[in-house]
Amino acid sequence: MTKFIPAITKLIEEFSRLPGVGKKSAQRLAFHIINMEQSEAVAFAEAILDVKRKVRYCERCFNITDQQYCDICTDYRRDTTQICVVESPRDLIAIENTKEYHGLYHVLHGAISPLSGIGPNEIKIRELIIRLQNEDVSEIILATNPTIEGEATAMYISKLLKAVEIDVSRIAHGIPVGGDLEYADEVTLAKAMEGRRHLNTSGQ
Amino acid sequence: MTKFIPAITKLIEEFSRLPGVGKKSAQRLAFHIINMEQSEAVAFAEAILDVKRKVRYCERCFNITDQQYCDICTDYRRDTTQICVVESPRDLIAIENTKEYHGLYHVLHGAISPLSGIGPNEIKIRELIIRLQNEDVSEIILATNPTIEGEATAMYISKLLKAVEIDVSRIAHGIPVGGDLEYADEVTLAKAMEGRRHLNTSGQ
Repeated sequence: MTKFIPAITKLIEEFSRLPGVGKKSAQRLAFHIINMEQSEAVAFAEAILDVKRKVRYCERCFNITDQQYCDICTDYRRDTTQICVVESPRDLIAIENTKEYHGLYHVLHGAISPLSGIGPNEIKIRELIIRLQNEDVSEIILATNPTIEGEATAMYISKLLKAVEIDVSRIAHGIPVGGDLEYADEVTLAKAMEGRRHLNTSGQ
Repeated sequence: MTKFIPAITKLIEEFSRLPGVGKKSAQRLAFHIINMEQSEAVAFAEAILDVKRKVRYCERCFNITDQQYCDICTDYRRDTTQICVVESPRDLIAIENTKEYHGLYHVLHGAISPLSGIGPNEIKIRELIIRLQNEDVSEIILATNPTIEGEATAMYISKLLKAVEIDVSRIAHGIPVGGDLEYADEVTLAKAMEGRRHLNTSGQ
């Protein structure tokens, strides 16, 4: 509605394309850039270009790295018999932040989604199968998202692995810790009931 | 907490510096850049640099422009006898969007704030006084923000202009249109009472 000079309009457009950035926020961000020192703006632009120049995928697990193999794959302390399969590098980071998992990862870079035209060949499933042939893996943990696409991907992979002798598991669904039963949605609650653990036999 | 490769850490840092962008959002934005096409990332970086190269202040009103004078100052249809004084170019845009004001502007680029070390000489007040000597202005509308700093700035300018024969006004404070008395803060409500208009004499 308001007419900005073309350079500002362009920058607002660029900011609007970022996830979670609306038109008003994009304007605020663009004006912030205008008020930045020249050197700060150059550093910002350079950081964007630098990430594109340096970031590549680990040749083993497809995590992001600036080397041939990522920090996790090259860490001799990790348990190489476990592979946790995630949809994205950000999911990997979320799991790393728990500090509870010490195995390796495999990043699919997506999930099967027929509606978006993403089939098994569009994500790194074949690469996972090849890894299983070359590496000595005893457990696969399917940690794709609890969405329709994530579930379908987990199902697909577990079926593929039926023939091989590897323990395949799926992360648990249930009520989030600190959550409130009253406010949980029905599907989550049903999954929590279904996945109940018998405290007298298998409990901690 | 999580160790990223340096290029990503740097980009997350850069995004975190933007207003309203927290650590989690900065991560999401950085990963968005990683997943961008190379050409998109270059366009984004270029847009940032381009804004810094091209944007300058109008020599008359200090609005942002890519010329010597801004679009508003060079628009012959505007009423050059009115100057609306605002703190920032974004405030100017907010007023322009109302389409109700047809005079000129003067952008102070800040407000007097002794706590932040911003005195009258740090913002474009002197430039406003010089304009009033050279231009044929009959009305000044002080549209600084209704904050302590904005009020102090408006007060300061109105005192400076006491000697000259110019109509100086301050934008009205009150209950926002569509607002609810019940939820208005006391100061706004008090201002709304104080600024009440007598409908039988001066009302519309």
